[in-house]
Amino acid sequence: VSKTTSRPTLTARELAVWRVFLRVHASLTRRLEQDLLLEHDLPLASYDVLVQLAEAPQRRLRMTDLADRVLLSRSGLTRLVDRLAAEGLVERESCASDARGMFTVITETGLGRLRQAAPTHLRGIEEYMTRRLDATELDTLGELLGRLLAESDPGAPEGGCGAAEGLAEPA
Amino acid sequence: VSKTTSRPTLTARELAVWRVFLRVHASLTRRLEQDLLLEHDLPLASYDVLVQLAEAPQRRLRMTDLADRVLLSRSGLTRLVDRLAAEGLVERESCASDARGMFTVITETGLGRLRQAAPTHLRGIEEYMTRRLDATELDTLGELLGRLLAESDPGAPEGGCGAAEGLAEPA
Repeated sequence: VSKTTSRPTLTARELAVWRVFLRVHASLTRRLEQDLLLEHDLPLASYDVLVQLAEAPQRRLRMTDLADRVLLSRSGLTRLVDRLAAEGLVERESCASDARGMFTVITETGLGRLRQAAPTHLRGIEEYMTRRLDATELDTLGELLGRLLAESDPGAPEGGCGAAEGLAEPA
Repeated sequence: VSKTTSRPTLTARELAVWRVFLRVHASLTRRLEQDLLLEHDLPLASYDVLVQLAEAPQRRLRMTDLADRVLLSRSGLTRLVDRLAAEGLVERESCASDARGMFTVITETGLGRLRQAAPTHLRGIEEYMTRRLDATELDTLGELLGRLLAESDPGAPEGGCGAAEGLAEPA
């Protein structure tokens, strides 16, 4: 029996953990989205794009790099960036010394919008996630999840929390 | 200082755990999607819809109930269901005894497609997630995640693993 035709060895318990993982993700992102829309009229996917740009060197990324970094859906990313540009939150910019195409840059208006929205977003993470676990449990969760990340996606950057924390400060 | 104007109390460590959670989700779903597209030409969001229908009573759901149950993006769900209907994987069906509108039902073709794709999907969950943790670690991860779910989303159903496992069996 070859590997490709053998039955998967996933148990019901293992599948249940995967499903809880998906369900927690759906639940948390929907509540965070609801809060951002209600208080700042800003979809979570837009917040995600603005954060990735704000934390990038010179606050700019090529679309391919932006697509690699966004943590929510990549589908519709081009249209989303078009909408953010129409609102003045990002700009397209060509780079004279680099023929590899256009950058998307976050504007001062975009940074201001992000700074306004950050307290709502961080409050939501605290309320919906971190408050529900004590420090040891949170460390354990981070360690177990990090193991999945380190092995499945070794090239992924590890965070850049300082920059995002800075966004929570009043401008 | 009122609650609404005080700074969020989220620490860098807490934010890092949230970001690892998002990054693991992005990494795992992208790899699972890639496998399903490559081996079955079936997007992960389509797989998600077919599973929710297959596990529902009488294998049918109203669109509003389907939107509540899907674990990936709800945006574009109507168009996605339109595409699945065009492929013959689902059908629209009205219910004579219930004036509250149309149901979406998974067809025999849709069930067959799901049974074909399930081994690929379950193999991916095993390879990218559960294999990387031992039984105790997996239990701990499930318990910590489940705590987030139970408190943040008390109405959420707890799983229905048996039905999905059944899909892994050859038809």
